[in-house]
Amino acid sequence: MAGVCFRSVLVTGANRGIGLGFVRHLLALPNPPEWVFAQVKELQQLASKHPNLVIVPLEVTDPASIKAAAASVGERLKGSGLNLLINNAAVLKTNSLDTETLKDMSDVYTTNTIAPLLLGQAFLPLLKKAAQESPGSGMSCSKAAIINISSIGGSISSFAGWDVMEIVSYRCSKAALNMLTRCQSMGYREHGILCVAFHPGWVQTDMGSAAGHTPPLTVDASIGGMLKVLSNLSDKDSGSFLDWEGNVVAW
Amino acid sequence: MAGVCFRSVLVTGANRGIGLGFVRHLLALPNPPEWVFAQVKELQQLASKHPNLVIVPLEVTDPASIKAAAASVGERLKGSGLNLLINNAAVLKTNSLDTETLKDMSDVYTTNTIAPLLLGQAFLPLLKKAAQESPGSGMSCSKAAIINISSIGGSISSFAGWDVMEIVSYRCSKAALNMLTRCQSMGYREHGILCVAFHPGWVQTDMGSAAGHTPPLTVDASIGGMLKVLSNLSDKDSGSFLDWEGNVVAW
Ligand SMILES: NC(=O)c1ccc[n+]([C@@H]2O[C@H](COP(=O)([O-])OP(=O)(O)OC[C@H]3O[C@@H](n4cnc5c(N)ncnc54)[C@H](OP(=O)(O)O)[C@@H]3O)[C@@H](O)[C@H]2O)c1
Ligand SMILES: NC(=O)c1ccc[n+]([C@@H]2O[C@H](COP(=O)([O-])OP(=O)(O)OC[C@H]3O[C@@H](n4cnc5c(N)ncnc54)[C@H](OP(=O)(O)O)[C@@H]3O)[C@@H](O)[C@H]2O)c1
Repeated sequence: MAGVCFRSVLVTGANRGIGLGFVRHLLALPNPPEWVFAQVKELQQLASKHPNLVIVPLEVTDPASIKAAAASVGERLKGSGLNLLINNAAVLKTNSLDTETLKDMSDVYTTNTIAPLLLGQAFLPLLKKAAQESPGSGMSCSKAAIINISSIGGSISSFAGWDVMEIVSYRCSKAALNMLTRCQSMGYREHGILCVAFHPGWVQTDMGSAAGHTPPLTVDASIGGMLKVLSNLSDKDSGSFLDWEGNVVAW
Repeated sequence: MAGVCFRSVLVTGANRGIGLGFVRHLLALPNPPEWVFAQVKELQQLASKHPNLVIVPLEVTDPASIKAAAASVGERLKGSGLNLLINNAAVLKTNSLDTETLKDMSDVYTTNTIAPLLLGQAFLPLLKKAAQESPGSGMSCSKAAIINISSIGGSISSFAGWDVMEIVSYRCSKAALNMLTRCQSMGYREHGILCVAFHPGWVQTDMGSAAGHTPPLTVDASIGGMLKVLSNLSDKDSGSFLDWEGNVVAW
């Protein structure tokens, strides 16, 4: 990761779990970002220690909140672009096939699938700017990228973990997020923006422990792996679905 | 198709296009179903000619309407089950990646993905009953099946037709419908209910012509193909994604 610099990064859902892990790891890099934008409600002290951490209020299911966040990030960046948008915020309802409802299906889709679309649209001008102001022609995460945190649960062919959790609303939302990632990679390629979906592994967070089991991966191991993979992404990876170790995951 | 009988069938979105094609073809079979349930608003005269066609009002985005439909179908079936649920109703908004909105993403998902889930739940008792009352142990469409009409547009790996139509909301909804089909096939296998997703081909309907091109397939050719494939489905096909010619489509 030595040479790569993620110059400016926005992480959604950074209040705990994997999102918070991203923020901590980014701030601790030998060459940390100039700006990290995140809503770290419960850890304001992180911000006081790190003047490059900017707390941005963001309710990802509210288009007005997304627009306000894009405006305030743009202002802080004073004319330069945003290099990395990490769509990490998500919800999981521990429903079975029989107990899913219209409301849960709809809520989960709004947070896990529609929000990453709207965030991509709102931050597109800043991502474009970052791509334009970076030297070289190839795509990379130090230039401009959208990282959608998906899940192996969204892999239709793997179809993992049904016996542990049916979570139809979550599976459907992540399969759709994978499709969105392909759409974004096609639509934003001409702007030099790389788009990738990630399975972070099964990680020790509130969500990871929702089925009552202890997940094998620590947040640190997952984030360490993902940052390493991120720093090596290039044109050929845009539109793909990778895990925290860089393996391709089947759709 | 000689030996197969689809004894009782419900088709959603049968007012025009492929849904109406299903109803017409089913009624014209040499051994037609005992009951075809569908909402054919504009062609009440079809019902007057075919006493086995029962017009069932059904707004698939309204859980109360779905429940009422299941109750009225159950009443008409007088204690026997429903063999075939064809989730065909769907909407397409000709949006681009840049013009998708929260509302369109949400509306399309509700009709194309959530409704097939809710219909599966509501008709489960009748489908179970059909599976129980049919002889033999293997699954088939003459026993009990859910057919979700999906689209090649929902295939993440094929990713067809981006240059013609971006339709992110539609693509995401159909990828999610494919995931739902796998979930239903897993969850309903123990009840003997076969679940399959279909790509009907690119068909001459209002939706098929939405991009301003003339699709290659007639409704008759698409339905003819699908009914032939349907009549040959067995256990090994449950949870798969097939086209109107019986070819497996990649997720
Ligand atoms: N943990 C795993 O094993 C695992 C496996 C596969 C994929 N993932 C994916 O990894 C990502 C992070 O998961 P996690 O395990 O860290 O989950 P988590 O511990 O449940 O944390 C989720 C985070 O998302 C935020 N969030 C949820 N809805 C939001 C909204 N509407 N607006 C803004 N923020 C919102 C939460 O904020 P609050 O604190 O305010 O609630 C929280 O900070 C998710 O995309 C998840 O699907 C996790
Ligand atoms: N045509 C193609 O080339 C093609 C290709 C791939 C997949 N498909 C799929 O094939 C299926 C049928 O498509 P089509 O071409 O026949 O479409 P269509 O001509 O647009 O007809 C759609 C039908 O769905 C009904 N519908 C929509 N929303 C509904 C709701 N909320 N409640 C009840 N009914 C509703 C419509 O009813 P109203 O008449 O009342 O509006 C209409 O009868 C869809 O699942 C579509 O995604 C079509």
